[in-house]
Amino acid sequence: MGMTMTQKILAKHSSIDQVKPGDFIEAKIDVALGNDITTPVAIKEFQKMGAKKVFNRKKIILVPDHFTPNKDIASAEQSKCLREFAYAQRIQNYFEVGEMGIEHALLPEKGLVVAGDLVIGADSHTCTYGALGAFSTGIGSTDLAAAMATGSLWFRVPSAIQFHLIGKPQKWVTGKDIILHIIGKIGVNGARYKSMEFTGQGIQSLSMDDRFTICNMAIEAGAKNGIFPVDKKTIAYMQEHSTKEYTIFEADKDANYEKIYTIDLSTIRPTIAFPHLPENTKTVDEVEEIRIDQVVIGSCTNGRIEDLRIAAQILKDKKIAKGIRLIIIPATQSIYLTALKKGWIETFIQAGAVVSTPTCGPCLGGYMGILAKGEKALCTTNRNFIGRMGHKESEIYLASPAIAAATAIAGKISNPEKIEEGGN
Amino acid sequence: MGMTMTQKILAKHSSIDQVKPGDFIEAKIDVALGNDITTPVAIKEFQKMGAKKVFNRKKIILVPDHFTPNKDIASAEQSKCLREFAYAQRIQNYFEVGEMGIEHALLPEKGLVVAGDLVIGADSHTCTYGALGAFSTGIGSTDLAAAMATGSLWFRVPSAIQFHLIGKPQKWVTGKDIILHIIGKIGVNGARYKSMEFTGQGIQSLSMDDRFTICNMAIEAGAKNGIFPVDKKTIAYMQEHSTKEYTIFEADKDANYEKIYTIDLSTIRPTIAFPHLPENTKTVDEVEEIRIDQVVIGSCTNGRIEDLRIAAQILKDKKIAKGIRLIIIPATQSIYLTALKKGWIETFIQAGAVVSTPTCGPCLGGYMGILAKGEKALCTTNRNFIGRMGHKESEIYLASPAIAAATAIAGKISNPEKIEEGGN
Repeated sequence: MGMTMTQKILAKHSSIDQVKPGDFIEAKIDVALGNDITTPVAIKEFQKMGAKKVFNRKKIILVPDHFTPNKDIASAEQSKCLREFAYAQRIQNYFEVGEMGIEHALLPEKGLVVAGDLVIGADSHTCTYGALGAFSTGIGSTDLAAAMATGSLWFRVPSAIQFHLIGKPQKWVTGKDIILHIIGKIGVNGARYKSMEFTGQGIQSLSMDDRFTICNMAIEAGAKNGIFPVDKKTIAYMQEHSTKEYTIFEADKDANYEKIYTIDLSTIRPTIAFPHLPENTKTVDEVEEIRIDQVVIGSCTNGRIEDLRIAAQILKDKKIAKGIRLIIIPATQSIYLTALKKGWIETFIQAGAVVSTPTCGPCLGGYMGILAKGEKALCTTNRNFIGRMGHKESEIYLASPAIAAATAIAGKISNPEKIEEGGN
Repeated sequence: MGMTMTQKILAKHSSIDQVKPGDFIEAKIDVALGNDITTPVAIKEFQKMGAKKVFNRKKIILVPDHFTPNKDIASAEQSKCLREFAYAQRIQNYFEVGEMGIEHALLPEKGLVVAGDLVIGADSHTCTYGALGAFSTGIGSTDLAAAMATGSLWFRVPSAIQFHLIGKPQKWVTGKDIILHIIGKIGVNGARYKSMEFTGQGIQSLSMDDRFTICNMAIEAGAKNGIFPVDKKTIAYMQEHSTKEYTIFEADKDANYEKIYTIDLSTIRPTIAFPHLPENTKTVDEVEEIRIDQVVIGSCTNGRIEDLRIAAQILKDKKIAKGIRLIIIPATQSIYLTALKKGWIETFIQAGAVVSTPTCGPCLGGYMGILAKGEKALCTTNRNFIGRMGHKESEIYLASPAIAAATAIAGKISNPEKIEEGGN
């Protein structure tokens, strides 16, 4: 029986020829990732297990990004725990404040993940790296402890759903609109414990940043992972960023998919997920007047260079609406620096935005833009659950950087197509 | 009997000819300032008093700067309270996130305080504006409520100490070193409830930013206020920033000072205040090796344009030491933008610093760099009390931006003179 891309990567890492959905396998880990929230728990587990040394100091990546620069004493202690472990174990890729960024933007940028890798991370959005043709999934802290100690982990082989992409997206329609459209279609449990495998000609028109965004939110449809085939753009990206050897896996022709959805990208409209689930989507054409208090452009979902480019394009020589707060968070120091050199940071500040140092911050209700009772935020982040970014009576709308920038200018949820035309 | 500068401003605002130390007077307020921490309390008091309208919507300034962008739900609620009050009362100078900065850097920059003003603010570092030849002091939230309702407030007229400045400071010796030197000399209660009046030829060599820093820390010697005479630099600053009318007050020739200190600026060495009081000063020449975990350049004391210029000058083409965190916080959006255009933000990020959006943040243990147990920070802030920036077993060293930048490069408390020479 043929295997999907995901199944082939899992099989390879278990040194077996053939796996099928539901099989339990033990697979070798290429990258084990932890952050300042999940790793301290994993370190305690690691010590409880009696483990002394990590299996490979080059395959573990530690990134303090959630509550750093330290939000409070508790988070300072977590960062300290992470740092001391990193130094004691001589972890090669520990990124200190100032060297760092949001983990899921940082790893590809630093060339630490490539096609064919098996990546686990104690963070649900670890699925991001599927954009590079890697198998990549989020795990719990206890599993991270085991993986750090042994270098391998048990998996249940997932079945797959194929998303066959055709057509070209309209202007201002990006990866975020596409994944929101898909989650709107299949629901937040629509791909539970399955792979979302993207195929088709439509992929060609998606940038790497689009693909990162799409895979990043695979978890929001309940998926075990999302994955893209490796094409010229993937290879060019890896050549620019990495010196690691990569392996290209392709789904077998007779691979089995539980379902195949054909998605015509040309028909997707700019899309917003309404409170309180990513599946509550509406196109921008369906939105009535909704006043917004705060806009956030950033996060592991949409804080990359293309996201900032689009925001700068829309905000250039404009002012945000009176009374709205616009918080822009470049995902990494490198992205920040690029945006700075291109003049976008200046554009943002001139427009009335604040620009934060890289951090997950507000996305998970950490800091740097928490919501009060009754406030509404439109964000390029990934989750709009009740209370995710603050008070349980606040509301989060999820959308692309284009919609976010247009909304900041208009003070209400807005269509970037209209801002471009000089209206609101 | 002759009056000091401070006494003359107070007399003028009470419409009396003559005041003397110890007199209780009621004086008219030119500016009443509140922030996101103190104003919500004042608003409650204002409402309890049965007050309906503020005395003058143009004379009240509200700046959410301490825990903004909102650190957590509690601070989000405080900001919301401030915002709603500002909108309801049509406060002319309410500064939203994105328009704002740290209050004591923002007000002079926006031209909202000028020579001769009587300024009160519900923040202890309100004494900063003495640099402009204004009387300016910190008050409690209840007093702010009364001032917002009535436009006047009771004061006990302070006696004064004169600091007669002569000579020119050495290179790298700035306002911060001078005020630390003075506090080291007279102690944290050395000027309790008195005016610190600065006089003498030495003033000419002090920039406005030096003077802001010096007056800012008058409170750290227990002073009611610090004040500088108005000279060409003051006038040039006001002409650049303000359209408000100013009044120059000069101390009477026969004004009475409890004490006169003559300070020869040319003899002051770069100075550091050791834990846990600003009076625990040592010159940089007396410091043994002290490893530092975190450096913060910012705050209402030293987050101004000259501070960033000095930091950039030292950090240019250098890298901070491995393992140290350097957090740089421009005090206002305008300072951020200037630093950006001058290429300093790029210098900071290239050096390995993180650059935060303007906020008081770590200075008062708010967020953006809180310390874990046992950590040591060297900061350009104003207070090194136990636990001020995090864990009660952390330590804070106070110093100038020059020492801070040199320390970030060396990883230990360091002399900027040595970094300049290429050593550590």
